[in-house]
Amino acid sequence: MPPVQTNRAEAFSDGVLAIAITLLILEISVPDTQGSHLLRALGHQWPSYAAYVVSFLTIGIMWVNHHALFQRIKVVDRGLLYVNLLLLLAIAFVPFPTALLAQYVRRPSGGHVAAVIYCASLLLVGLGFVALWTYLRNHPELRTADFSDAQVAAALRRTWRGPVAYVVALLLSLVSAYAALAICGAVAIYFVVPYRTDDVTDALT
Amino acid sequence: MPPVQTNRAEAFSDGVLAIAITLLILEISVPDTQGSHLLRALGHQWPSYAAYVVSFLTIGIMWVNHHALFQRIKVVDRGLLYVNLLLLLAIAFVPFPTALLAQYVRRPSGGHVAAVIYCASLLLVGLGFVALWTYLRNHPELRTADFSDAQVAAALRRTWRGPVAYVVALLLSLVSAYAALAICGAVAIYFVVPYRTDDVTDALT
Amino acid sequence: MPPVQTNRAEAFSDGVLAIAITLLILEISVPDTQGSHLLRALGHQWPSYAAYVVSFLTIGIMWVNHHALFQRIKVVDRGLLYVNLLLLLAIAFVPFPTALLAQYVRRPSGGHVAAVIYCASLLLVGLGFVALWTYLRNHPELRTADFSDAQVAAALRRTWRGPVAYVVALLLSLVSAYAALAICGAVAIYFVVPYRTDDVTDALT
Amino acid sequence: MPPVQTNRAEAFSDGVLAIAITLLILEISVPDTQGSHLLRALGHQWPSYAAYVVSFLTIGIMWVNHHALFQRIKVVDRGLLYVNLLLLLAIAFVPFPTALLAQYVRRPSGGHVAAVIYCASLLLVGLGFVALWTYLRNHPELRTADFSDAQVAAALRRTWRGPVAYVVALLLSLVSAYAALAICGAVAIYFVVPYRTDDVTDALT
Repeated sequence: MPPVQTNRAEAFSDGVLAIAITLLILEISVPDTQGSHLLRALGHQWPSYAAYVVSFLTIGIMWVNHHALFQRIKVVDRGLLYVNLLLLLAIAFVPFPTALLAQYVRRPSGGHVAAVIYCASLLLVGLGFVALWTYLRNHPELRTADFSDAQVAAALRRTWRGPVAYVVALLLSLVSAYAALAICGAVAIYFVVPYRTDDVTDALT
Repeated sequence: MPPVQTNRAEAFSDGVLAIAITLLILEISVPDTQGSHLLRALGHQWPSYAAYVVSFLTIGIMWVNHHALFQRIKVVDRGLLYVNLLLLLAIAFVPFPTALLAQYVRRPSGGHVAAVIYCASLLLVGLGFVALWTYLRNHPELRTADFSDAQVAAALRRTWRGPVAYVVALLLSLVSAYAALAICGAVAIYFVVPYRTDDVTDALT
Repeated sequence: MPPVQTNRAEAFSDGVLAIAITLLILEISVPDTQGSHLLRALGHQWPSYAAYVVSFLTIGIMWVNHHALFQRIKVVDRGLLYVNLLLLLAIAFVPFPTALLAQYVRRPSGGHVAAVIYCASLLLVGLGFVALWTYLRNHPELRTADFSDAQVAAALRRTWRGPVAYVVALLLSLVSAYAALAICGAVAIYFVVPYRTDDVTDALT
Repeated sequence: MPPVQTNRAEAFSDGVLAIAITLLILEISVPDTQGSHLLRALGHQWPSYAAYVVSFLTIGIMWVNHHALFQRIKVVDRGLLYVNLLLLLAIAFVPFPTALLAQYVRRPSGGHVAAVIYCASLLLVGLGFVALWTYLRNHPELRTADFSDAQVAAALRRTWRGPVAYVVALLLSLVSAYAALAICGAVAIYFVVPYRTDDVTDALT
C-alpha cells in the first residue's frame, strides 16, 4: 500500500498555514500609555500594522498557490511529505522576521539587518516551493493525469522567479530596507495572478 | 481544470476562525497580586472578560454565517479565494482591538480611541462579507443551482446592514464608548437570526 | 435547503479544542535562574505541570465525548451551531483558570479563590454539554435513525452528573482547594468510561 | 454502533501537531538591542534557532509516522482515542523543553538539566508511539485487512528503538548535553526512512 491520498497532507498544511497566519497578530502588543495620547502611541506602531498586512497576504497567497499545486497531486509518498515539511518549516518561521522587521525597520543600523533576514526567510520559502515542484517533476506517478511534463516544467520555471527576486531584494536591502520590502510585496502580487501560457494553465484559474 | 471544490477553502477558513477565536483567551493575563485580595484583582479585570465574551460570540456568529454562505457555493475560483483571504485578514485582526478595548475602555481619553478602533475593525469585517457576497452575485457559475439571483441580491442587501450599523457605532463612540459597544453587540445578535423573506430563505435555518 | 451535514461543525470544533488543548503549554514559562539550581526552580513549578496534565486530559476527554455525541447527529441546524458555540466558549476559556490555579494553588488566600474559579469554569463546560444534549432531545429530526428518545434521555441524565459534581467541588474548594481538584479529576475519569445501561449504549464503545 | 471511522481522530491529531509545531516560533523572542549590533544579538540566539529546527523536524517526522500508522487503522474505538490522547499530551509538551534547552544549553550547570528534560520528554513521546502500536497489536479488529500480526509485531519492534535510544541520550546528557542532542537528532533521521524488511513494508513508502 505505497502512496496515499492527499487529504491528510492538505489538512496538516492547512493547519500550519492557518496558525502561522493567525499568530501574526500576537506580535502586535497593546501600547502602554501613561497619560499620553493613545492615538499617537498607536500611530507610532505603524510598521507593525504594515508588517502584519504584508506577511498575512504573503502567507495567504502562498496558501492559494499551495492549494493550486496540490490540485495537481493525485497521491503523496513519504518523500513528498518531507519536502512539504521543509516548506512548512520555512513558512512557520515567517512570524519571527516579521516581528523583527516591525521593530527595527526605522532604526538606522538594525533596519538593514532586519530587512536582510526578512528577505532571506522569504527566499527559503520560495526555495521550498521550488523543491516541491522539482519533486513533482521527478515523480510523474504522483501527478494527476491531466498534468503533462511540459506543464510541470513551465510551472517550475515560473516558481523559480520567486527566489531570484528575493535574492535581488536581499542585496538591495543593504542599500534600502524600504526598496527591498517593495520588491517582496511585488513578488506576492506577481503570484496572485495564475500562470497561463500557450499550453499551460494553472490548476486554479 | 478551472474552479475546484470548496472543501479546502472551508478547512483553511475554519482553521483561521478557530485560531482567532481561541487566541482571545491569551489576552487575559493572570493578575499578579502581592498580598492583596485575588478576587478584587480579578474583579478589576472585568472589561477583559466582557471583551472576551463579545469578541468570541462575534467571531463565532461570523463563522456560522460564513458556513451558511459557503453552503451556497458549489466551486471556488482564484478570485473568490482572494476575497475570502481579505475577509480572514480582517477577522484575524480582531484579537488586537479586543485587547486594546479591554485595557482602555475605562480610561477617560483612551476609551474613545479604543472604541473607534474596535468599531472600525468590525466595519472592515462587515465589508469583507459584503465583498464575498458581491463576488458571488457577479459569478453565478460558482453558486449552487438552487440559489437564484434574487436570493443573492436579498442576502447582499441584508449583509450591508452590518457595515452601516458599524459606521453609526463608530461615530457614536466619539460620544460614548459603551453605547458604541452596545450597537456592536446588537449587530451580532441581529446576524444570529437567519434571514427569511417572501422568496429568500437562509441556507441554514 | 435547511439543515446541513455535520462535517464543518466538527472541523471547527476540532480546531477550537485542538488549539485550546495545545495553548495550555504556553502558560508554563521557562524559569529564569541566575546562578541557582535549575532543577530546584523547575521543581518549584510543579503546580504548573499538574495543572497542564489535568486540563489537557479534561479537554481531551471532552473531545472524545464531543466526538461520540456528534456520531449521533445526522444533520445540524443553526440552533445547534449556536449551542455548540456556547460550549466552545466555555472550553476555550479553560486555559485561563488553569494558569490562575497553577499560580495560586499554594497560597493561603488566593488558593481557594482560584479553585472556585476553576470549578466554576468546568461547571460552565458541563452545562454546555447538558445544553447540547437537551437541544438534541428536543430536535429528533437532527439525530441518526438508531438513536431513540429513551437513549437521549439516558445520555442526558448521565451528562447532568458532571455539573452536579462540579457544584460539590466548587463548594468544597472553600474548605480545601486540593479536595476540590480531586473531584474535578474524578469527574474526568468518570467520563472516560462510555455509558452503557440495559438499553443504551454509547456511540463509541 | 461501536467503532467509528478515523477521519475525526486524524483531524484532531493533525490540529494538535500542526499547532504544537507552529507554536515553536513563539519561543524565539525579538532581541531588544539598545545601540549595540542587531546581528550580534541575533547570533547570540543561535541555540534558539537550532532548537526550533530540531524540534520542528522531530514533530514533523512524528506527524509523517502518525500518518503512516493511521493508514493501517480501519476504525477507532474509545480506547485507541485515549491512547492517542496520551501521545498528543507528550507531543504538545515538546515546545516547553525546547525553550528550556534553547535558554540553558550553554550554561555550565543548567545545560545538563535542560538536556535531561528534553530527552525525557522525547522518551515519553516515543513511549506514546509504543503504546499506540501495542494497542493496535492487541486489537486486530481495528486494523486494515492487509496488515498482518507479523507486520504489526515488526513495526512495534522498530518503534521500541526510539525509547531505547532516548534512554541512552538521557544518560549521556549527564556527561555532554551536545552529545545527547546529537542522538536525539539521529533518532529523528532514523525514523525518516520507512521500515522495510522481508515481509514488512511501511504503509507509506
